[in-house]
Amino acid sequence: MDPAEQSGGDFYELFDGLDGVAFLTKLFGIILTDAIQKGTQKDAKVVEFLHPADLAQCIDLKLSLEPTCDKTLLNLCEKIIHYSVRTGHPHFFNQLYGGIDLHALSGAWLSDALNTSQYTYEVAPVFTLMEKVVIEEVKGLIGFQTGDGLFCPGGSLSNMYALNLARHKMFPDVKLTGLSALPTMCVMTSEKGHYSIKKGAAFMGLGMNNVITVKTDERGRMIPEELDKAIVKAKSENRIPIMVNATAGTTVLGAFDPLHAIADICQKHALWMHVDGAWGASLLLSKNLRHKLHGIEKADSVSWNPHKMLCVPLQASLFVTRHKDLLCECHSFKAKYLFQQDKFYDVSFDTGDKSLQCGRKVDVLKLWLMWKAKGTKKLAAEIEHLLECASYLTQKIANTEGFSLVLKEPECTNVCFWYIPPSLRSCEQNEEWWNKLSNVAPVVKQRMTEQGTLMIGYQPDGDLVNFFRMVLVNPNITNSDMDFVVNEIIRLGCDL
Amino acid sequence: MDPAEQSGGDFYELFDGLDGVAFLTKLFGIILTDAIQKGTQKDAKVVEFLHPADLAQCIDLKLSLEPTCDKTLLNLCEKIIHYSVRTGHPHFFNQLYGGIDLHALSGAWLSDALNTSQYTYEVAPVFTLMEKVVIEEVKGLIGFQTGDGLFCPGGSLSNMYALNLARHKMFPDVKLTGLSALPTMCVMTSEKGHYSIKKGAAFMGLGMNNVITVKTDERGRMIPEELDKAIVKAKSENRIPIMVNATAGTTVLGAFDPLHAIADICQKHALWMHVDGAWGASLLLSKNLRHKLHGIEKADSVSWNPHKMLCVPLQASLFVTRHKDLLCECHSFKAKYLFQQDKFYDVSFDTGDKSLQCGRKVDVLKLWLMWKAKGTKKLAAEIEHLLECASYLTQKIANTEGFSLVLKEPECTNVCFWYIPPSLRSCEQNEEWWNKLSNVAPVVKQRMTEQGTLMIGYQPDGDLVNFFRMVLVNPNITNSDMDFVVNEIIRLGCDL
Repeated sequence: MDPAEQSGGDFYELFDGLDGVAFLTKLFGIILTDAIQKGTQKDAKVVEFLHPADLAQCIDLKLSLEPTCDKTLLNLCEKIIHYSVRTGHPHFFNQLYGGIDLHALSGAWLSDALNTSQYTYEVAPVFTLMEKVVIEEVKGLIGFQTGDGLFCPGGSLSNMYALNLARHKMFPDVKLTGLSALPTMCVMTSEKGHYSIKKGAAFMGLGMNNVITVKTDERGRMIPEELDKAIVKAKSENRIPIMVNATAGTTVLGAFDPLHAIADICQKHALWMHVDGAWGASLLLSKNLRHKLHGIEKADSVSWNPHKMLCVPLQASLFVTRHKDLLCECHSFKAKYLFQQDKFYDVSFDTGDKSLQCGRKVDVLKLWLMWKAKGTKKLAAEIEHLLECASYLTQKIANTEGFSLVLKEPECTNVCFWYIPPSLRSCEQNEEWWNKLSNVAPVVKQRMTEQGTLMIGYQPDGDLVNFFRMVLVNPNITNSDMDFVVNEIIRLGCDL
Repeated sequence: MDPAEQSGGDFYELFDGLDGVAFLTKLFGIILTDAIQKGTQKDAKVVEFLHPADLAQCIDLKLSLEPTCDKTLLNLCEKIIHYSVRTGHPHFFNQLYGGIDLHALSGAWLSDALNTSQYTYEVAPVFTLMEKVVIEEVKGLIGFQTGDGLFCPGGSLSNMYALNLARHKMFPDVKLTGLSALPTMCVMTSEKGHYSIKKGAAFMGLGMNNVITVKTDERGRMIPEELDKAIVKAKSENRIPIMVNATAGTTVLGAFDPLHAIADICQKHALWMHVDGAWGASLLLSKNLRHKLHGIEKADSVSWNPHKMLCVPLQASLFVTRHKDLLCECHSFKAKYLFQQDKFYDVSFDTGDKSLQCGRKVDVLKLWLMWKAKGTKKLAAEIEHLLECASYLTQKIANTEGFSLVLKEPECTNVCFWYIPPSLRSCEQNEEWWNKLSNVAPVVKQRMTEQGTLMIGYQPDGDLVNFFRMVLVNPNITNSDMDFVVNEIIRLGCDL
């Protein structure tokens, strides 16, 4: 299993003067067997949980003056793998990421090895062109005829790009003079929208209190009439609305805000419309599912995280806008040591100055390689498969005693439900009952984690007490994994 | 050379149901030979340059509905490697990163394979503890007795964390209410400081005009008396200074601002002192060099990019502050779906809420693994070696006809110089002469890039016309590489 041992001694002679080839090669073998093979087997554990103090005892993490030999390091790497959560395991449903796509992983590895920065064509010629190709493809999926975009280090920052562009479009002076001389601005998002809008508002000097949360309907979708009211009210309070953040796939319920209706309201009030599609924009790939995002083509900007539903390793997040020059106007500084204008090639290919960052990791290759390998058709088929699994699970839960759905039909691949243990089943659902139910998910979660059989997240949401949120992202799961989830929760919680 | 072929057919049987193992294994072989071995050989090219239109013809980057077979994909990967800049090549001196450390690369690969997010102990148990260990070690290097820190996606964002903490400490209401009701704030940085302070000020609503640049001395170091004056002047203009950004290792000249004197001024005016050590803080690892950062222990916060002088693959950037709870106060939002307080383990280990991000890529492992492998001593020795090479090159340039140093002694591993071709050597140095000299570096750069023999950056700086900036980061370089640089520039430019 160790490719280096099998290829014999002269394998290393090629690498004269390069320390670490033997280490890298041996670790490659360990990653294949321990992280990838064992990490994705159904009969292996999802996690080997230890509490922090115990884990700290198990792995010698301390740094020292002296070197550590490769044998010890490899042993440490084995332990790191052993005690890390197997996010590629088919029973990991804990976050909005998971699964392992080996073409995407290959792309990540090649990016690491070629180690460069996405800022200039000079040092990233291939990746500059590749980013353009992917941005064009994504613009096409959204329905933008023109525009620009870039890869960002995560969806939160992608959403902050939207805030900055919206603000700049309305108040271009803000770049130079700042907010202190400008009126108070505000931003609308739904009460189920992601918290990055609030974090962003705080960071960008707008203030969290100036993020106005709009009421949602029973399925977690922003209510357009409420948005309109909120805009009118904010104006009457002398707060200038600059942006509406619509969500395509909310974090917990997976709700898709009614983009078409929201776009009309944004148009009416001349407001920037951003779609946070970090989670749900992957559905654009499927002709059968993209109707859920109807209206996205009218947006001013979109965030999308292929590191979520497409299983690209973190980080892979795109920000795309229909406005061609605004990213550059808003962020460019024209640093003379980096973006020299007297270079011998076409410097319009030095695209880094449109970024908030200076050095910017290459995130495009892993997405591109996987997309190229599968083609859009297969990506679409995988997403459709996930939605089918979510439907199957929803039906299964509806038909299984002791389970109660939060939503009767899934909006996305999120399936939210309570498990009601036998002791609570025939009782009156009063406040005490809901309090008791609230304690069930944390205990079941503790047991699944300690036993390592399954990982699912839980949370309260508004008035709703703790419930489980299944999120499906790994295309290798099947209906039998859905059956496993239901049976396993019963096994873990039937004595509660 | 292909480990998969040599280990035979049953190699893949272990990976039943997992597409892509063969691809990953074959690509591993290609990365080893093409990217790592050939990419670091002195007699290989640093870059195989093509103009954008020609490169686009060479590699089929377009995405399509249909899949692409592995054979074609591997061929594409070979081309991607072929046309990418070999940043690990010993003659790549173009940016503040470069070199390949195979232990760090191993850590990057393992992080990609274990693909998780740094936000909770629940999904990143090992990496949560590991980040704490590294932050503690870095605090120790700086001389902070207490404090906190985290990995950020690059030095620009690390510097923005400093801005946000400084602002929050003085005006804690800003998080909720924003800047519109607050007085105009300002930030001081040297005229040679990194542009991320200005980009950050724009993004964070402070405004670029409120970044006040302080004059530097003949070696590019901030003049403390000028800082003091700038602070007094700003106050007289009713602008409230919130932070001084001192630089440890400026981008072009590698200057270290006088941190001790700056700290005294910050203390006098009760101002946050940030040290942008993205480039130069690596010198803290060496007992013989850390005196250049004397006074850093008095700072409120420090940025440091191990992806620069330590050759860790991008991105690896740390932000560290002496203030224990401020990162959390400033950024936390307590999202209930992620940072549940009723978890069964000690939730103080869920450290992600102190970040501006939600999902956060694991950047710690690659640094940790390399540091563990080498020990602090070897890291220090390598940095000392780089400084010695910089000294050698400086001497060589001083003693070679046709070269002129910008600084007589290097401050860091930056060596800045003009090449003066024979035709300009015995002329009067009037305006026309400087204009002509300004055109030399771009032409030499074009030639070195087209011939692929060498990559060095050039830029103007203030009143100084285009000069070369060598930056040394690859510990495998030797004095003979320095000789090569001088001889190669002569070869490329002697007819000018």
